Amino acid sequence: MTKKAASTQKKSDVYREALELHERKQGKLEIRSKVPLRTRKDLARAYTPGVAAVCRAIEKDKDLAYRYTLKANTIAIVTDGSAVLGLGNIGGYAAIPVMEGKAILFKKFADIDAFPICFEKYHAGFADDIKNIAPVFGGINLEDIAAPKCFEVEEALQDIGIPVMHDDQHGTAIVILAALLNACKVTGKEFEDLNITICGAGAAGYATARLLKCIGYNPDYCRSVHDIIVCDTNGIIHRQREGLYANKYKFILADETNRQGRSGDIAVAMEGADVCIGVSAPGIITKKMVRSMNDDPIVLAMANPVPEIMPDIALSAGAAIVGTGRSDFPNQINNALVFPGMFRGALDACATKITNGMKVAAAHALADYIRKPAKDRILPSILDRRVTAAIAGAVKEAAIAGGCARRTSE
Amino acid sequence: MTKKAASTQKKSDVYREALELHERKQGKLEIRSKVPLRTRKDLARAYTPGVAAVCRAIEKDKDLAYRYTLKANTIAIVTDGSAVLGLGNIGGYAAIPVMEGKAILFKKFADIDAFPICFEKYHAGFADDIKNIAPVFGGINLEDIAAPKCFEVEEALQDIGIPVMHDDQHGTAIVILAALLNACKVTGKEFEDLNITICGAGAAGYATARLLKCIGYNPDYCRSVHDIIVCDTNGIIHRQREGLYANKYKFILADETNRQGRSGDIAVAMEGADVCIGVSAPGIITKKMVRSMNDDPIVLAMANPVPEIMPDIALSAGAAIVGTGRSDFPNQINNALVFPGMFRGALDACATKITNGMKVAAAHALADYIRKPAKDRILPSILDRRVTAAIAGAVKEAAIAGGCARRTSE
Repeated sequence: MTKKAASTQKKSDVYREALELHERKQGKLEIRSKVPLRTRKDLARAYTPGVAAVCRAIEKDKDLAYRYTLKANTIAIVTDGSAVLGLGNIGGYAAIPVMEGKAILFKKFADIDAFPICFEKYHAGFADDIKNIAPVFGGINLEDIAAPKCFEVEEALQDIGIPVMHDDQHGTAIVILAALLNACKVTGKEFEDLNITICGAGAAGYATARLLKCIGYNPDYCRSVHDIIVCDTNGIIHRQREGLYANKYKFILADETNRQGRSGDIAVAMEGADVCIGVSAPGIITKKMVRSMNDDPIVLAMANPVPEIMPDIALSAGAAIVGTGRSDFPNQINNALVFPGMFRGALDACATKITNGMKVAAAHALADYIRKPAKDRILPSILDRRVTAAIAGAVKEAAIAGGCARRTSE
Repeated sequence: MTKKAASTQKKSDVYREALELHERKQGKLEIRSKVPLRTRKDLARAYTPGVAAVCRAIEKDKDLAYRYTLKANTIAIVTDGSAVLGLGNIGGYAAIPVMEGKAILFKKFADIDAFPICFEKYHAGFADDIKNIAPVFGGINLEDIAAPKCFEVEEALQDIGIPVMHDDQHGTAIVILAALLNACKVTGKEFEDLNITICGAGAAGYATARLLKCIGYNPDYCRSVHDIIVCDTNGIIHRQREGLYANKYKFILADETNRQGRSGDIAVAMEGADVCIGVSAPGIITKKMVRSMNDDPIVLAMANPVPEIMPDIALSAGAAIVGTGRSDFPNQINNALVFPGMFRGALDACATKITNGMKVAAAHALADYIRKPAKDRILPSILDRRVTAAIAGAVKEAAIAGGCARRTSE
């Protein structure tokens, strides 16, 4: 068997095994009781008549739902199935297995009870629908919602009293910020001097540009790189580009990035850049482009499973540090490093929202978790579960400092 | 300590213990993984990349969500908190502990994964909101929603492709039908000859009247009693009563019940009745009223915890059979006997709805479960869990016979 044939075989094996597993188990999630229910006394405490005392307490103060109910530790994973993995707009039904998968990661990595809420498709009133089911949840993880709807929905839900975060945006942006902080330590570059090219202006690209450039962030706690150039499928986003006004979010990018007013394709965008961040499509970055970058270039090629450029090629073109989304290369840059600790910290604080300060704190906690960053180790392994606690602690502190924590003690 | 003081003490103990339990456990529900997640291979099967095969299969045929996802065994318990236990309209937050309690009953009695969805309050678009979150659920148990909204919401959701049942209506109506079928066997009364007085025209009263009188039911499989008189807080519902047109559901009752056109109070309604069903308020039925009933009267006084008439008083007034909602008297008539088996059967059939045929089948299965009904034993104990399987089997069969089962074999 050739290497390629073997790889294809392996892939079809894992698909077959996945189908078999999902069918045998009828999905991946189970809802269980945390309290005993064997005797009439158990029933009297957990249900009637005892439960009436709990209801009356919450009726007087609805924040007591954090003390007495599942709200304390439960989040919703909400999707419309419009941008699922690399599969595109497959709809809410087909998205269920991914949301269940994310839920089991939340449980394993952060001991959070996460339940999937899948809307069949995007519809007017989507944000209101989410708001209306919020009472039982202590937070909402928006997932796999296509840009630009994901920005609108998230914005609309910022003041509903619980943290709402679109993980594809901020989970990714935070892990990238952490990776860059440590990549700077390794290469000796100054974070504030970085010129960055971002390939991809979807959910991840937009949020990453905002976080790295302090767009909408308080510059007192958010460090800004020198400049960013963002490319989408039409090339570099710049102020003179046609049709920019049709998309508020691309307009914001044009307004806040690309100081030199460059226009053209990715190759133009990459010239002289210190960092190239790929959150786009397989294979779009060439060896030549990497060679055109500044000294000691940093390449984070995160398209999955096939990156924008393969690590060996980027390294042979002179990249000082290369990261990908894959577990089989060094420097895996995966939002799974962030979302468990982010929501753990938010729940521990009974937070009313996830602020920019909490996001920045999460990135620094993640970067600082690596004592001595090295070329092949700018971030911890996603299997290192102490990361969750490190991030959660920093996030909770930032929530308290930012005045959006209902719980400020242990 | 007097007996009354001791009872008050006991009550305050159970309240205190309930609060302590709920605080210590932070609610009662936990969401867990049914699949292992220890190795990279586990992750590849349960999440990426394997999960993509499962998504693609469901994208082609969304009914495969029943084969591969939690939908197969998961229901929502949905409320707006408008009629919770005896607490009234306490809102969606304060209702959470009750919905969690119901969820643990579903798990224990029917191995169903039930998740609470609590809306803060009733709002226009409530039914649409429920429909929009239906993809992950195999059924929806409407719970503790005040009449008449509960009727409207349930009607609006009958064609969304999964079973939607308001338990306070139909769970109660079904257990009452089962109780009456067996009470007839004990007393020698013919079901079709029964004249029945129902005290209470809320969710339970309306649904019970409809089921016992075949209103909206197919008379081929639903046996009808001779006549019913329904009373609400304004007395007997009859065609000439003022203001009847303001409430569609009371109009239906006026139109379909009370053949003799009686008017007046409960005492008038009870005269000559074979059966009195109380789904109303404590203590409203007197000894004198029971004495005015037909020979061998059947009294089901289900207000909880204090019934419309205490069993010893009803018996001393000549009642042949007395049932209540309480576990400390014989003949506990509780919808907990019905809802686990009803939803178990519906899920086993991957049913598209809960039909009237399925409700009638559930009642007969429950009645027939008691081989030899007796004065003190017209229904099984709610702790007898074989009841669930008996009802589930009958419900699944009825779903198949009614053409609303996606799954027709084992």
